[in-house]
Amino acid sequence: MSLEYSKRLDYSKLDGLIPAVIQDAASRRVLMVGFMNDEAFRRTCDTGFVTFYSRSRNKLWMKGESSGHRLVVREISTDCDDDSLLIKVESLGPGVCHNGYESCFYRKLDGDVWIESEPRTYDPAAVYGSKS
Amino acid sequence: MSLEYSKRLDYSKLDGLIPAVIQDAASRRVLMVGFMNDEAFRRTCDTGFVTFYSRSRNKLWMKGESSGHRLVVREISTDCDDDSLLIKVESLGPGVCHNGYESCFYRKLDGDVWIESEPRTYDPAAVYGSKS
Repeated sequence: MSLEYSKRLDYSKLDGLIPAVIQDAASRRVLMVGFMNDEAFRRTCDTGFVTFYSRSRNKLWMKGESSGHRLVVREISTDCDDDSLLIKVESLGPGVCHNGYESCFYRKLDGDVWIESEPRTYDPAAVYGSKS
Repeated sequence: MSLEYSKRLDYSKLDGLIPAVIQDAASRRVLMVGFMNDEAFRRTCDTGFVTFYSRSRNKLWMKGESSGHRLVVREISTDCDDDSLLIKVESLGPGVCHNGYESCFYRKLDGDVWIESEPRTYDPAAVYGSKS
């Protein structure tokens, strides 16, 4: 595939990264936000599986590489300033969150208190090991 | 309102900012991504209208302050790492994008070409002046 499509994106505002919003293509639930550099974005396009750049580990990270809960790309959009991505996906697995939830956004503001408002969809210790 | 609720968020990873995904509460369409610092987040909570920190203008920016297309907060979530926000809104106006579209994500990747795949919902020149 030509690399021209990746040149449109503006990685300059966050030191080489852009945020990528991951949305379930069917339910439209927002599942998580990750960051991509140019290589992660091209890897995502080339493989069809969402691949981020891990800021904590300083390396490419295909979502689901350890859990098996990979994200199949269904549609990619960029915004007016070309500095954010929206990726609609099919999620292979019961949840994207390493804490065991369907979405990383499981904590809501209720008045002035953050509450966890939904049950886990899987046991993270069984997937990621006892560290989680 | 207590300020305790804002202390949970981790602004350290992006020099004092966190990304905020704005989603239409009714249609679940993702409308835009903006950035908030602690003051913008608290202003959002206190006023009930989405307020960002503008990276280009280096100041707080209530979305819709010039266009009137303000965003009424319906629900605020944070993610597992407390470094992203998801804000469900009611959008007051025909679109959030300064280019005249309902969503800033109006450009999709089709093969290896970015295409604009939907009509404008308003005339940006009439709202923002001829500069747009």
